[in-house]
Amino acid sequence: MSKLLQDLNWRYATKKMNGQSVSEDKVQTILEAARLAPTSSGLQPFEILVISNPEIKQQILPLAYNQQQIVDSSHLLVFAAWSGKFKERIEKVFEHNNSERGLPASATDDYKNMLLNTFEARGDEANFNFAARQAYIAFGMAIAAAAEQKVDATPMEGFDGPSIDKLLNLEEQNLKIVTLLPLGYREEAGDWLVNLKKVRRPADEMIHVLA
Amino acid sequence: MSKLLQDLNWRYATKKMNGQSVSEDKVQTILEAARLAPTSSGLQPFEILVISNPEIKQQILPLAYNQQQIVDSSHLLVFAAWSGKFKERIEKVFEHNNSERGLPASATDDYKNMLLNTFEARGDEANFNFAARQAYIAFGMAIAAAAEQKVDATPMEGFDGPSIDKLLNLEEQNLKIVTLLPLGYREEAGDWLVNLKKVRRPADEMIHVLA
Repeated sequence: MSKLLQDLNWRYATKKMNGQSVSEDKVQTILEAARLAPTSSGLQPFEILVISNPEIKQQILPLAYNQQQIVDSSHLLVFAAWSGKFKERIEKVFEHNNSERGLPASATDDYKNMLLNTFEARGDEANFNFAARQAYIAFGMAIAAAAEQKVDATPMEGFDGPSIDKLLNLEEQNLKIVTLLPLGYREEAGDWLVNLKKVRRPADEMIHVLA
Repeated sequence: MSKLLQDLNWRYATKKMNGQSVSEDKVQTILEAARLAPTSSGLQPFEILVISNPEIKQQILPLAYNQQQIVDSSHLLVFAAWSGKFKERIEKVFEHNNSERGLPASATDDYKNMLLNTFEARGDEANFNFAARQAYIAFGMAIAAAAEQKVDATPMEGFDGPSIDKLLNLEEQNLKIVTLLPLGYREEAGDWLVNLKKVRRPADEMIHVLA
């Protein structure tokens, strides 16, 4: 059986964590999986914050409906998507790519200019929505990597985004939080979900083979 | 080294495919990874269409900027997010979950009603944006699974969405396409990207450790 499928069957949205630390090499593997995620035009239009400081986690706790994994996790990952300054950021990505590939800075100007026009035309809100979607690919990769490392994780969307943006000074960096991912280890005794059956929509309902 | 990181380093957005078929068991593994992707409240608010019919692929080709992987792929996956009928769909997910877990249908009514209120209040466009993001998690899992199976894939966002929605009758099913994922095998000779260095934003720029 596919190792990835085994890992995805092993994982679950951990409801109670035990406070145990996740080793630095496992955290780095999880972050690297997120960094390697493919994104549209290779822009990677998001940032990942890594929080292990108990005081910051404590401040986030009430802004995330007091979900205790925030403070019982070892590391809390914050995925924040670009919400502005797209032109400068896109220019930087293209400069870096061409430099890494030993190409002239102008090698991809036609494509870059087409992209810059698209971003300018559709405005910051649509650009943020675009960026947020890309962040979710990386979020998925981080979840898969955590499972591979037998690190528990709880994908979270339930929080007061604007308040966390303010707390972490994201708005002034032209960023908005999209998801949280506490990493840690399950505390089975206090976890109401761990022994419930994993349920997904039936394959024959969500997957449609066109003849 | 993490097997997932190896796989993510192996993969790339294949620009030229050779028409070779991907075996049914590999396709099933890729689809199962997408189905196992975690989603907010477990809703899995998207559908996946699987197209191997050459005529349908040929009709999609001009609607996807003539990207030849559409027709040179073995299977073309279409990720389509829910764009309406949220209430009925959410009810069905909860019914199925409780039934699979041997719980009374009413076991999760408080949570479900809270969710239904949220969906009703924010309207179809915001609900679609929510659904699209969830689809991207599954899209990421499918990409990771393809890499694990040494199947090439090309994550695509460049297409005329409304025209594909019309062609595939998605609109009348309250769905909208969000991404395409052709699966197949690389044709190195005609692929301009295969030998270019994989570049990502530097870790120290996109990952921020808060002290």
